[in-house]
Amino acid sequence: MQVIKIKPLDEKSFAPYGDVIDFNRKPDFAINNGKCDRFHDLAQVSILGDDAKLGISLGRGRPYTLPLELNMMERHPLGSQAFIPLDKKPFLLIVAADKDGAPDAPIAFMAEEGQGVNYHRNTWHAVLTPLDEQGDFVIVDRIGEGNNLEEYFFDTPYLIKNR
Amino acid sequence: MQVIKIKPLDEKSFAPYGDVIDFNRKPDFAINNGKCDRFHDLAQVSILGDDAKLGISLGRGRPYTLPLELNMMERHPLGSQAFIPLDKKPFLLIVAADKDGAPDAPIAFMAEEGQGVNYHRNTWHAVLTPLDEQGDFVIVDRIGEGNNLEEYFFDTPYLIKNR
Repeated sequence: MQVIKIKPLDEKSFAPYGDVIDFNRKPDFAINNGKCDRFHDLAQVSILGDDAKLGISLGRGRPYTLPLELNMMERHPLGSQAFIPLDKKPFLLIVAADKDGAPDAPIAFMAEEGQGVNYHRNTWHAVLTPLDEQGDFVIVDRIGEGNNLEEYFFDTPYLIKNR
Repeated sequence: MQVIKIKPLDEKSFAPYGDVIDFNRKPDFAINNGKCDRFHDLAQVSILGDDAKLGISLGRGRPYTLPLELNMMERHPLGSQAFIPLDKKPFLLIVAADKDGAPDAPIAFMAEEGQGVNYHRNTWHAVLTPLDEQGDFVIVDRIGEGNNLEEYFFDTPYLIKNR
């Protein structure tokens, strides 16, 4: 089984796949008479199709443990999808470039405390993967009609291990 | 100075002003092969105007203390605005119905651990008000051109006190 080591999440490495939503940046401007710093417009959101909207949901995910066997990845052809952790716990992210309609070699990132992400539309990614403990997330994604889920099952799973 | 006592936040009382975004409800369905409960589409999001989108930002607010003098409220005529706390700390919410283009009597709610809100478009509300400690929030609101901020300053401030 091919082993994939987990890398720390940073904006530059993640850029081909999505946006990092975190406070590790300068605030863009202050609101509320200077009492609140706003880190503005951190995600390339995108939705396709009429009668679709970007909506707000919550997700409560049961935990996974490392090392982890990666059997499947998915993508959403009609919209971006953001996950922002509500409890500032690390979670695992696995993404891949597309190669002829299937995921190319997966890349694993560890989101550190307080980092959320927005997957760009049609980017291959693994399911939501909190580690060791239940994870609560804000989800901001497309809500609407149409088939917005494509799944790909690997013939041979990958093994995801901590760095 | 007129005193306003703070009430606990619940979905029904808050409904005329916006949506409560929390886990105090049954999940709508499971995703990720049953590993994640999804609490789906919890907010009436709304944006007006061409070239506008619903975007994802972060806010880091400096704290207030109680009792608090309420001098000003604001509203956003072009879009809804959601604040979801990232650290599961309580925060103060103050909203008001509209009366002839000004806020009617303000109503104060305490969001308990993990509760976020979405203000409906054009609803009078106070600025983001974390209490006692800095508060980090996901903000999901309209990003685009046009004047989306209306402020109202009270002649006589209100005094907001804990219940």
